[in-house]
Amino acid sequence: MYAAMGALGLAPDSQEKAFTPPQRSDFALRGRGAAKVVVLGAGIAGLTCAYELGKAGYDCTVLEASDRVGGRNLTLRGGDALRDLDGRAQTAGFEEGTYFNAGAGRIAPWMVTMDYCRELGVPVEVFVNNNAAAYVYTRGMPAPVRARTARADLYGYVSELLAKATHAGALDRRLSAEDRERLLEFLRRFGDIGPDLAYRGSERRGYRVPPGTSEGLALAGPSSLAEVLAAGTGRAVTMDFGFDQAMPMFQPVGGMDAIVTALVRAVGEERIKTGTPVTGLRNLADGVEVTHRGGVVRADYCVAALPPHLMARLPHNLGAEVTAALRTPAPVAAGKIGLEYGRRWWELEDRIYGGVTETDLDITHIWYPSHGYHAGSGLIVGYYNTEENAELYGSMSPRDRLRRALTQGKKIHGEKYRTGLRSSLSIAWHRHPHVEGGWVRWESHDGGFALLQRPAGRVYFAGDWLTHLVAWQAGAMESARKAVTDLHRRVLSGPSS
Amino acid sequence: MYAAMGALGLAPDSQEKAFTPPQRSDFALRGRGAAKVVVLGAGIAGLTCAYELGKAGYDCTVLEASDRVGGRNLTLRGGDALRDLDGRAQTAGFEEGTYFNAGAGRIAPWMVTMDYCRELGVPVEVFVNNNAAAYVYTRGMPAPVRARTARADLYGYVSELLAKATHAGALDRRLSAEDRERLLEFLRRFGDIGPDLAYRGSERRGYRVPPGTSEGLALAGPSSLAEVLAAGTGRAVTMDFGFDQAMPMFQPVGGMDAIVTALVRAVGEERIKTGTPVTGLRNLADGVEVTHRGGVVRADYCVAALPPHLMARLPHNLGAEVTAALRTPAPVAAGKIGLEYGRRWWELEDRIYGGVTETDLDITHIWYPSHGYHAGSGLIVGYYNTEENAELYGSMSPRDRLRRALTQGKKIHGEKYRTGLRSSLSIAWHRHPHVEGGWVRWESHDGGFALLQRPAGRVYFAGDWLTHLVAWQAGAMESARKAVTDLHRRVLSGPSS
Repeated sequence: MYAAMGALGLAPDSQEKAFTPPQRSDFALRGRGAAKVVVLGAGIAGLTCAYELGKAGYDCTVLEASDRVGGRNLTLRGGDALRDLDGRAQTAGFEEGTYFNAGAGRIAPWMVTMDYCRELGVPVEVFVNNNAAAYVYTRGMPAPVRARTARADLYGYVSELLAKATHAGALDRRLSAEDRERLLEFLRRFGDIGPDLAYRGSERRGYRVPPGTSEGLALAGPSSLAEVLAAGTGRAVTMDFGFDQAMPMFQPVGGMDAIVTALVRAVGEERIKTGTPVTGLRNLADGVEVTHRGGVVRADYCVAALPPHLMARLPHNLGAEVTAALRTPAPVAAGKIGLEYGRRWWELEDRIYGGVTETDLDITHIWYPSHGYHAGSGLIVGYYNTEENAELYGSMSPRDRLRRALTQGKKIHGEKYRTGLRSSLSIAWHRHPHVEGGWVRWESHDGGFALLQRPAGRVYFAGDWLTHLVAWQAGAMESARKAVTDLHRRVLSGPSS
Repeated sequence: MYAAMGALGLAPDSQEKAFTPPQRSDFALRGRGAAKVVVLGAGIAGLTCAYELGKAGYDCTVLEASDRVGGRNLTLRGGDALRDLDGRAQTAGFEEGTYFNAGAGRIAPWMVTMDYCRELGVPVEVFVNNNAAAYVYTRGMPAPVRARTARADLYGYVSELLAKATHAGALDRRLSAEDRERLLEFLRRFGDIGPDLAYRGSERRGYRVPPGTSEGLALAGPSSLAEVLAAGTGRAVTMDFGFDQAMPMFQPVGGMDAIVTALVRAVGEERIKTGTPVTGLRNLADGVEVTHRGGVVRADYCVAALPPHLMARLPHNLGAEVTAALRTPAPVAAGKIGLEYGRRWWELEDRIYGGVTETDLDITHIWYPSHGYHAGSGLIVGYYNTEENAELYGSMSPRDRLRRALTQGKKIHGEKYRTGLRSSLSIAWHRHPHVEGGWVRWESHDGGFALLQRPAGRVYFAGDWLTHLVAWQAGAMESARKAVTDLHRRVLSGPSS
């Protein structure tokens, strides 16, 4: 075989030269590998490993403890069942066509997830991450306001304050006369302030009756500067400022699990063994041995693509330092509830088409669906919360979670939030079998984080938790690319290593 | 007939009581009308009039001068021909599946256009009006930057300036100690400034290499405060602050003319006479008489839904005051060019998925398509400009418009902007037959604007130009609703009026 590879210019030494590190958007392992690889975990990291290795000629087997593939890429539909570690069971009563992205929900366009959607033929559509028509509600406010109103008021007053300070000469040491002119010009645009530099409201706040054949009726307001500051809407107004949250974001058409389905098809369903919890992992002199409920798998290499806190519990011979490293990152609680309504009142009455309502209530967010606009029914995410808030909801029965979520959401949307409900389903990721966390938090990127970037013998690690994109599918994919690149390079460098 | 209507509770007097003014989202004329109405113009205003009147039982005929219906709702596809008033002819060479919304391009979710999409079963998708990954380029800048970078820098420096002024006590007379604390908290979030209140850049600016398995490589920068102010990116950064421009916006799936197609189907194609320029309009004692190339139409009422400057030229007996009023609003020049590429380099290389690049070059905007993501080919709008810039491009041959648009766009996107082009088509709305303007501008809403809200005898006027939503389809629809409401009320109030 090596002779044949040599004839094709693919023998290890020529390979090593031909190998080019992967580039974003055009990743492919160069050259063929002929090793057998066992992948632990059929989440996005594991599936991506199997997909990329398969493309390069490897013989992969994926072992998945759960009955489902996809990990935290989880889309639930009518009839789907959930059972958490505490034995709480739910079955989705959603109608045909309704889906609930219970885990991963959005993709930034710069993320490699988009490349996989392209490569695998998964159509994408805009995920509305920020909607000027959504609400902002904090306990500091008498009533919810539209995001556009909160934004206009904050920007208006900030502009007024800075314009007046500039005009009064408070910034003369910092700004040239030309800078001052330019700054004032910007602030006029930015805050929609008057010629006297005062903010008195703006059409940007929205209308009670929008313009049409008449001019429209302005909203009452704005509140005073002190009231606007006290409302504490800053988090809401800046929610899409981060590099990973900026509009537009995307989602696969028909549910996030379209990515999983496409990966499974590309890997080959027959290579993926679900319902197969791994019970042990050993590095051998010439390979790896994985024991699982039902048997033993031997392979040349292993990619362990499990959550680190679960991997840490698996009996293995990788050493105490590896176990300690796997135990370093702390799992973070996260939860979501899907609320299905028979009528899209948020579109019909509130004119909210997708997007997020931000609140400091324990529900934290309400997501409106970014698909199926104008359909008869729809599903909103009634909470997407983390840490203490997720622990709180996670500790309740599904029925109590729902009751509380409705009580909170009603403060924003009124009685229809409760009366129009058709069905619901909630997930507590930190209590979800074979996952046990929304994601993990590292206190530092030295130590364990650095150690696990390297293989332990013939075992490679992969997952979003090994990247600077924790909690993103893109992290899982980037980590998978790194693991398979390292593994492939080693295979190509010769049979001895 | 009146007896029959009375039996059904539909006779005029009971009607008048039953009549309820239309409400947004649930418009319908109450009761049946039995009059014959001739509608001039099959743009969105004319079609909406015919649609609503038809629903209420009226017998409508729509006369359209052009061979096409839809007016400025114009979607062009491969094979479509354009000929302007100067005789310049173009035929679209776009491939199957490519379309160019040459006129109306976006819908705000609060607009009544969305209700028509819902009612008529036109599916909608997000129009990306603001994209953090799009570019901003002004002649004050050495090179284009991403919108996110321009935004982060402006917000960062504004926060620094105001935070430092606040900290130094410059705002103590305006702000209580509590206000100051809250303002500083907001500014830290808003500008991503440091503990010393200085802005030194932020991940929000974007990366040279995005984070993944490594932390990512930051962009160089930021430039100094003076340079950031001199760059003049304020217009770009605030482009979606207006009530009518805020994200998310929407478009019909498959092309804006899906609205036209649905309206035509609902009105009945047989009621619409294209290629039928009107040559005269007369109020009679008991009706109206419309002469057109090929004949005369008599009806009980007329709705004139033409652009006012064209209507003003039509021989009529409505009086000099009406003519003067119709001449009052000034047509505004507007132009667009569609550039079709065989490869979506803006997605593949620039990671721009929809949205708008803002520039102070004469092209003003570049729009990237908000549909067909990851398709093999795509069409971008290479300019969408108005007034002087539109006059400039409109005065050129299509070939010269293209050449100039490519020269300008190349400053932002480089050589691929020119080399990858497959075909193009441009429109100058102010030179487009039977339209002759992008929209109109009123200097005041008294005088002519107010006069034309009322019928001239049996002739009603309708169009976006009669509303506070000039240039929006929603304006045309709102105006149509008003016209048919007034007309219907008159019909229902009795045969004598």
